[in-house]
Amino acid sequence: MSAYDELMAFQSETEALSQIAGRLGWDQETMMPRGAADQRAAEMAAIEGVLHARRTDARVGDWLDAAEPVDDVARAQLRHIRRSYTRTMKVPAKLAADLARLTSKAQGIWAEARAAEDVAAFLPTLKEVVTLKREEAAALADGGDLYDALLDDYEPGATVASLSAVFNALRPRLVELRERVLGSAAQPDPLHGDYPVEPQLALASKLAETFGYDTNHGRIDGVVHPFCSGNGLDVRITTRTSVQDPFNCFYSTVHETGHAAYEQNIDRAYLLTPLGAGVSMGVHESQSRIYEKQLGRSRAFTGWLFGQMRDGFGDFGVADEDAFYATVNRVHSGYIRTEADEVHYNLHVLLRFDLERALMAGDLEVADLEAAWNDRFKADFGLAVDTPSNGVLQDVHWSVGLFGYFPTYTLGNVYAGCLYEALRAAVPGLDDQLARGNTMAATDWLRDNVQCHGGLYEPREVITRATGAEPLEGPLLAYLEAKFGALYGV
Amino acid sequence: MSAYDELMAFQSETEALSQIAGRLGWDQETMMPRGAADQRAAEMAAIEGVLHARRTDARVGDWLDAAEPVDDVARAQLRHIRRSYTRTMKVPAKLAADLARLTSKAQGIWAEARAAEDVAAFLPTLKEVVTLKREEAAALADGGDLYDALLDDYEPGATVASLSAVFNALRPRLVELRERVLGSAAQPDPLHGDYPVEPQLALASKLAETFGYDTNHGRIDGVVHPFCSGNGLDVRITTRTSVQDPFNCFYSTVHETGHAAYEQNIDRAYLLTPLGAGVSMGVHESQSRIYEKQLGRSRAFTGWLFGQMRDGFGDFGVADEDAFYATVNRVHSGYIRTEADEVHYNLHVLLRFDLERALMAGDLEVADLEAAWNDRFKADFGLAVDTPSNGVLQDVHWSVGLFGYFPTYTLGNVYAGCLYEALRAAVPGLDDQLARGNTMAATDWLRDNVQCHGGLYEPREVITRATGAEPLEGPLLAYLEAKFGALYGV
Repeated sequence: MSAYDELMAFQSETEALSQIAGRLGWDQETMMPRGAADQRAAEMAAIEGVLHARRTDARVGDWLDAAEPVDDVARAQLRHIRRSYTRTMKVPAKLAADLARLTSKAQGIWAEARAAEDVAAFLPTLKEVVTLKREEAAALADGGDLYDALLDDYEPGATVASLSAVFNALRPRLVELRERVLGSAAQPDPLHGDYPVEPQLALASKLAETFGYDTNHGRIDGVVHPFCSGNGLDVRITTRTSVQDPFNCFYSTVHETGHAAYEQNIDRAYLLTPLGAGVSMGVHESQSRIYEKQLGRSRAFTGWLFGQMRDGFGDFGVADEDAFYATVNRVHSGYIRTEADEVHYNLHVLLRFDLERALMAGDLEVADLEAAWNDRFKADFGLAVDTPSNGVLQDVHWSVGLFGYFPTYTLGNVYAGCLYEALRAAVPGLDDQLARGNTMAATDWLRDNVQCHGGLYEPREVITRATGAEPLEGPLLAYLEAKFGALYGV
Repeated sequence: MSAYDELMAFQSETEALSQIAGRLGWDQETMMPRGAADQRAAEMAAIEGVLHARRTDARVGDWLDAAEPVDDVARAQLRHIRRSYTRTMKVPAKLAADLARLTSKAQGIWAEARAAEDVAAFLPTLKEVVTLKREEAAALADGGDLYDALLDDYEPGATVASLSAVFNALRPRLVELRERVLGSAAQPDPLHGDYPVEPQLALASKLAETFGYDTNHGRIDGVVHPFCSGNGLDVRITTRTSVQDPFNCFYSTVHETGHAAYEQNIDRAYLLTPLGAGVSMGVHESQSRIYEKQLGRSRAFTGWLFGQMRDGFGDFGVADEDAFYATVNRVHSGYIRTEADEVHYNLHVLLRFDLERALMAGDLEVADLEAAWNDRFKADFGLAVDTPSNGVLQDVHWSVGLFGYFPTYTLGNVYAGCLYEALRAAVPGLDDQLARGNTMAATDWLRDNVQCHGGLYEPREVITRATGAEPLEGPLLAYLEAKFGALYGV
C-alpha cells in the first residue's frame, strides 16, 4: 500500500468513528432517556478520546509527508487531512482538555444564568472561555490575526478583511430597509388560531420530501432545537411543533432539509472520506437558507403551500395566496436571532460578529459586553433590550466556545443570494414549477453545481464555480430590497 | 495511581465504548434508515476494531500482573478482566478476524437459505463456521473439552458434565409431561379475534412499569425481534405487535423487562465496570423467564391481566379469569422454539444442545445435521418436521457462531425454578399481591438477592446464595408438573 492509501484507510476509520460520535449526539437529543446523562457523558468522553488519539497519531504526519497525490481528488483529500492534523497538533493537549472541560461546564452555567436573567452569574465563566479561546487562537495563528485563526475552523479561507468588506456593505442597507419596511402603512397580519400537531408533522414530512429529502438515508424526529446530523448514507433531520406557529415547524424542516440535501447529494465516491461532508459552515448555511428562504418563502412556492395548509387545516383565516405570501414573510421587530425574519436576521449576526471580534482582539472587556450589545442593538434595531435573555444571554454559542461561527450564518445568506441569482438565470420557468410544489429543477441545479462536490473545492471556489463570479453582497441585497420593497410597497 | 486504579480507569473507557457499540446495534434495529446499512457496517467495524485493540492492549496484561486487589469487589473485577483478556489473547488475531468476517457473511446466507427452504445452500457455510469454531475452541480449551471452552463465553464455570446431569434428568420428564398434557380431554381455546395495536402497546408499557421497568433509564420501541440493549443508566427494551396475538407483545415485553430490570438494578457503584452487567446468559435468562413465566403467567397475575385486557379491548371472548389463565398457558404442538410454551420450550433447547455438542466433538457431520434434527424432533415432539424453516434452519444462532449459547436458555429456566421456589418461601402472600397487579415484593426480592450483585459472584454462586442450595432441575420440574398437571387435569 502507498502512504496515501494507508492514510486514507486510517482516515476512513476515523471518519466512521466520527459518524458514531455524531449519532450519539443525535440520540442524546432525540431518544436518550433523561437519567442516562451521566453515563452518556462518559461515553462521549471515551469516543472523543479515541478520536483525539487518532487525529494526533504521529503516523498521520508521516503519511502526509510521504503521500503523493495522483489527482485533484487526492490533493483535496490531503488538503483536508493536513489542515485538520496541523490544526490539532498546534493546540497543546492541556489547553484542548481545559477548553473541553470548561465549555462543557460553561453551557450549563449559561443556561442557568439565562433562566435567572442574571448576566453577572455568567460573566466570570465567559471570561475564562474568552481567555482560553484567545490562547487557542494564538496557538493556531502563527503570529497572524487571532480571529482569522478561529474563523478558519468553520470557513476555511475566510478572513476578517474579506468578511468585513461584505458585512460593512450589508449593514447600512439592511438598517435602512428595516426602517422603510416597518414604517410602511401596509403591515400584514400574523397567523391566528391553533394548528393541530399531527397535520403539522404530516405537512412537514411532505415539505421535506418535496425538497428532495431522501428518507431511505435519513429520518425525521422531534426535538426542542432542530438540527441535521450525520453524513453520507445516514443524514437525519429533526423538527419541532408549536400549536400557534406552524411556520416554525414547516420552515425549520425545510431549513434542515437544505442541510441534509447537501450531505445526501455529495458524490458517493467520497463516502467516509474528508471530501464526504459539506465543505464549510457558510456553504452549508447557503443550502439551508436558499431552500428555506429564496425558494420556500417565494411567492410561487407559498402559493402551493397555501393550498396545502387549506387541505390540512381547512380555512385558517388567511384570504388568499397573496395575503398568505405576506403573512409568511411578515417583518416584525424582535430581540431573538432565531426568530428573526429575513430583513432583521443578518443584523443580528453582524452585531455578534463585531462584538466577538472585539472580545478576541482584546478591544472589548467581558465586563462591558452587555452594554456594548445593548447599545448596538438600539442603534441597529431601534429597540432597547428589555432583559438579558432577549439580549446578550440569548445564544448558546459563546458559552461553548464557538467564536468565529456566527459570521458563517450571514456568509451563508450572501452565498445563497449569489446562488439564487445564478439559479434563476439557469432555470427558466422556475416559478411555474415552484407554484406546483415542484422544486426539482432548483434542487437538481444546487445538487449538480454545489452539493455533489462535497469538500473537493475551497468554500469560495464552490460558489465561484457555481455562479461564475466571486461571492459578494450585491445579489442578496438586491433580492431582499426587491422582495420586501414590493411586499411593503416601499 | 496504583496498577489496579490504572487498569480500572482504562477498563471504564473500554466499557463506555462497548456501550456505544451496543447502542449502535440498538439503533440499527430500531431507528436506522434502510439505506444506511453499508455505512453502518463500516462504523461497526471501526468501533469493534477500537474495542479489540483495547482488549488486547499489552498494558492490560501488565496491570493484571501488578494489580493488588484490596477487597472482594476488586478481586471480582480482576477476575472478569483477566478472564476476558486471557480469552481474547488465546485466539490468534487472524482466526478472530476470519470468524468475524465469516459469521457476518453467514448470517445473510442463512437468512436466504431459510427463505428459500434450501438447507443445502447453507451447509457449506455452516461447515466453515463449525471448522473455525472448533479451531477457536481448541485455542481456548488448553487441551480440555472444546464445547466446555465455548460454554465459558456465555456461562462461566458451566461444563458439559454439569449441564448434562441436569438436562438428562429434565428431558424424559418433559417428554412425558407433554404427552400427558396433549392427551388430555381438556384443551383450552386459543385467543380469537383482532386486538388493535395501540391498546396493545399501551398495556405493554403498563406491564413493563408494573414489573418495575425504569423509563427514566430506558425506553420501549418497536422491532421485528424484541431484545434488551445496554447496561447501567441506559437500558432499552423493544417489543412487537401482532393483531391476532397480543400475548406475544405482552409477554415478550415482560420477558425483556426481566432482562432490563437485572441491568437496571445492579449496584450503581459498578457502573461502567465489569461488575456492572448481568453475570451470565443463564442468570440473565433466569430473570427474564421468572418475570415472564412464573410470575407473569401465574394464575394470580393473569387474573389481574384479564381485567386489564377487558379494559383495553372490551369483551374479547374469554369468559372468566380461569378460562383466561388456561388460554395464556395453552400447550400446543409446534415446530418453532421461540413460539413454544413452557412445556415444550426446553425440549427445543435440549435438542440443539445435543446436536451442537456432537458437531463440536466431531461426532456429527454438518451433512448429517438435518437428518439428526428431524429424527430427534420426531422422538421428543412426536412430529415430523415439514420444512427446513420449521426445523434445522429456524434459528440464527449457528450462522453467527453462537455455539454454547443455547443451553443457557434452559439453564436460565432451571435457575428460575430454583429462584421461584425460594421467592415463594420468602414472600408470603405473594399471590394476593400479584392478583392486584403488584409485583413489587417479588421484584424487590429478585433485585436484592440476584440483580444487585451484577458480576460480583460466579453465576452458580449467585443462585446458591439466593436460594441456599445448588441449582438443580427439581424445582423447575415440580413447578411445571404441578402447574400443567392441574391445568390439564392430568
